Amino acid sequence: MINVAVLGYGVVGSGVVEIIKKNSLSISKKAFKEIKVKKILDIRDFPDSPERELITKNPDDVFDDPQIDIVVETIGGATIAYDFTKKALSMGKHVVTSNKELVATHGPELLALARQNQVNYLFEASVGGGIPIIRPLNRCLAANEIHSIVGILNGTTNYILSQMKREGKDFDVALKEAQKNGYAEADPTADIEGHDSCRKIAILSSIAYNEFVDYKFIYTEGITKISLTDLKYAESMNSTIKLIAFSEKIDDKIVAWVSPVIIGNGHPLAGVEDVFNAILINGDAIGEAMFYGRGAGKLPTASAVVADIIEVVKHLGSFGGYNWSLAEGDNVLDVMETQTRYMVRIKIKDHKNAKNDVTKVFNKIEWLNAFNMDNEEELAFVTEKVLEKDMRQNLEKLKQSEAVEEVINSIKVMEA
Amino acid sequence: MINVAVLGYGVVGSGVVEIIKKNSLSISKKAFKEIKVKKILDIRDFPDSPERELITKNPDDVFDDPQIDIVVETIGGATIAYDFTKKALSMGKHVVTSNKELVATHGPELLALARQNQVNYLFEASVGGGIPIIRPLNRCLAANEIHSIVGILNGTTNYILSQMKREGKDFDVALKEAQKNGYAEADPTADIEGHDSCRKIAILSSIAYNEFVDYKFIYTEGITKISLTDLKYAESMNSTIKLIAFSEKIDDKIVAWVSPVIIGNGHPLAGVEDVFNAILINGDAIGEAMFYGRGAGKLPTASAVVADIIEVVKHLGSFGGYNWSLAEGDNVLDVMETQTRYMVRIKIKDHKNAKNDVTKVFNKIEWLNAFNMDNEEELAFVTEKVLEKDMRQNLEKLKQSEAVEEVINSIKVMEA
Repeated sequence: MINVAVLGYGVVGSGVVEIIKKNSLSISKKAFKEIKVKKILDIRDFPDSPERELITKNPDDVFDDPQIDIVVETIGGATIAYDFTKKALSMGKHVVTSNKELVATHGPELLALARQNQVNYLFEASVGGGIPIIRPLNRCLAANEIHSIVGILNGTTNYILSQMKREGKDFDVALKEAQKNGYAEADPTADIEGHDSCRKIAILSSIAYNEFVDYKFIYTEGITKISLTDLKYAESMNSTIKLIAFSEKIDDKIVAWVSPVIIGNGHPLAGVEDVFNAILINGDAIGEAMFYGRGAGKLPTASAVVADIIEVVKHLGSFGGYNWSLAEGDNVLDVMETQTRYMVRIKIKDHKNAKNDVTKVFNKIEWLNAFNMDNEEELAFVTEKVLEKDMRQNLEKLKQSEAVEEVINSIKVMEA
Repeated sequence: MINVAVLGYGVVGSGVVEIIKKNSLSISKKAFKEIKVKKILDIRDFPDSPERELITKNPDDVFDDPQIDIVVETIGGATIAYDFTKKALSMGKHVVTSNKELVATHGPELLALARQNQVNYLFEASVGGGIPIIRPLNRCLAANEIHSIVGILNGTTNYILSQMKREGKDFDVALKEAQKNGYAEADPTADIEGHDSCRKIAILSSIAYNEFVDYKFIYTEGITKISLTDLKYAESMNSTIKLIAFSEKIDDKIVAWVSPVIIGNGHPLAGVEDVFNAILINGDAIGEAMFYGRGAGKLPTASAVVADIIEVVKHLGSFGGYNWSLAEGDNVLDVMETQTRYMVRIKIKDHKNAKNDVTKVFNKIEWLNAFNMDNEEELAFVTEKVLEKDMRQNLEKLKQSEAVEEVINSIKVMEA
C-alpha cells in the first residue's frame, strides 16, 4: 500500500483524488501496488465533501507522517508550493506536480534536492494537460537529438483565436465568452499575454535539450493585439493565426519565443482548434512527430498527475530525474539576433509616398491586397526573413515617414 | 558501462548501431551510463562494414558473454528470433525488440519469462516506428481507462491510398511505385492484406486494456479491393478511405478489426498522408489524444529501440513489464456481433427492380449518385448501422436478386 497526500484541493487536486478512487483497480494492476489518498491539505473548509475526513489544515499531518510516500502538489504558484515541495523532498518524499510556474522558476534547485534525497520530482501535468509529452520527450525520444519544438500550449488563447476566426467575434467578446465558459480565468493575463505558454516552452526545452532554459530569457508576446482584420489578412494568405511557443537548438544556443504567428493552413498546427493543444517535435532520428489532445481541464491534467504517481510506485527503488544545470540565461540566443518573416500593416496618409518609403526601408517585400479598408488608408505587406533588431529599426524608420500615420501591427509569418 | 548485443544487422539493427554511435554523448547523459555495442550477430558477411570487428556468426559470443546485459532482437519473424529471445531472457539478459510478429504471437510467454528472470522485455519499436505510443499508453495514460484506439498503423498502405487519391493511380500502379521507392517490400502481402496492422492493433490493445489480445481473433481485411471509383464515392461523401486498425473495450469484451474505412474529412485521421502513422486514443480522463509521426523507416524505428535500451539502463535495478494473461480469444467479440455503417456498390441489370430489391433488403439507406458509370449500370448507397452477420446475409440476398449482377464492393463508413 502506497499512501499519497494531496496538497491543495482545487480543480486538479480534487481530480487526482477522484481518479485514484474511480480507477483504483486498474491503477493498482498497473502499479503492482495499491495506491491510497491518506491526507488532503487545504486551508479551506469542505464540510460537504465526501473526502472531508481526509482533509486537514495542518501541514504536520502530512510531513510528520512517515507512511506518506508521495506528495501531490496542486497548490500552484511559487511561494507556499515552493516551501512545501522543498520540505517534502528534504524528508525523502516523492513529489508530483502540475505546477508549471514552480518548475519553470525553481526546477534546477528542486531537481537537485530530489536527487540528493534519492526521490523523484515529476511534473508531466505541467505541460499539455493530459497529453503525454514530458515523459515521451525524455524517455521515448531519448535516442534523438531534438532540433526543435513548435507548440500550441495554451488552450485559452487557442479557444479565443478559434472563436474570432470562426464566429467573427472581436478579441474582447471572445475573451468574455471564454471566461463565461470556464476556459479563461477572471484574471486572464497569464494566458492572453503568453506567460503560461512561456513557462511551458521553457520546461519542454529544458527536457528536450537536457539543460535548464530559464523562462525569463524567452521573448514573450500575447494575442491582445490580434484583430479580426489581422485574421482576414491571414486568411487571404491561405493561413491562420495561432499563439505559437517555439524553441530550436542551433549549435550551442537555444532560440525560444512565444508569439502570435501567421501559419500556413497546411501546417500541422493550423487545424488545432478550440481548447486543444498540440506539440510538434523534430528530432534527428524520428523526423517529425506530433502530440495532440486536451491541454487543460480537471480530469486530463489530473490523469497526468496520477500517471506520475504510478511511475513513482513502479520504480520505488530507483529514481531517474533530470539533471538541469543552473544556466544564467546565456544558453538562450538574444531575441534580437533571431530572424523571421513578418506581415506588416501600416495606416497611411499618402499612398504613393508610403509605398515608396516601405520599399526604401525593406529589401524585398510582397504586397498584400488591403481589402478591409480603402486602399488609400492602409498598406499591408510580407517581408523576407529579417533579423529582429533590423525589423525593429525598420519599423521605427517607417513611423518617421511623413506618409505613414502608424504601424498597425506586425506579426510573425511561418510556413508549413 | 553497459554492453549491448544486436541480433540481426539489417535495416533496423544497423540503425540501432548507428544511433548509439552518433548520439553517444547525449545518450549517456540521459542514461547516466555509457552504452556500447559489443557484438553484432548475423549469418551474413559484412566485409566492408566499419563494424566488421563486432560482427559474429556464433550465438555463443553473445549468450556466453556475461558482460552483455542487453540484447537487441532485430531479426524479425517468430522462429529464430523466438529461440534467441527465450535464451536471452532465461539467462537474465534484458531484451529490446522491434519485432511485432513475435510480440503479438508469443508476448504472454516472453513477458512471463522476463518477469521470472527479473529482466525487461521491451518493444516500443514494434508499433508506430519512432512514434512514442506503447510507453505513453502504458505509463502516461496509466490513470485512464482506455475506451478505444483508432489508428493508421501501416505506412505502406497509407502511401498507396494517398497516391491513388492524389495522383489518380490505380492500386497496382501505386503498389509498384511504393516498391520502387522502398516503401513496400518485394512480397507486400503482410502490408496490403492488413496483417501488419492487425499485429500492431493487437499489441496496442493488449497494453491499453491490460490483457492479452490475440491477433488471430481480430478480423482483418486489406486494401487490395479498393478502387479509384471507391475513392471517388468517398470524395463525394466529403470523406476519404484509410486502412483503419480499430479496437474498443465494451464491458468485458474487446471489439477489434482492421479494414478499409470511409472516414469523414473532418476526422483527425483523414489528413494523415503518405507513410505517416497516427494513433487516436480515447480515455475516460484525458478524452481524445493523438500521436502522429513516421511509422516506419530505419532511423525512426531504431530510435525507438534505443529509447528502450536507455529505459532499461535507467532502471537496471527494477523492472516493470506487462502482465498479460494468456487469453483463449474469448475476450474478443465475434466480428459477426459488431456493427457499423456500410457504403455498398452493386452492378445492376434492371435499375428499377434493383432499387426495389435493395430497399426490401435494407431497412433504411441513403442513395448516392452513381457518377462514375451510367446510372443504369450501378447503384450505390450507404446503410444505417447494421450487425456484421446481418450485413453478410443482406449482401447474399442482394446477390440472389434477378436485377442485381454483382456486389462490387462494400466498405465500412465511420464519421468524425
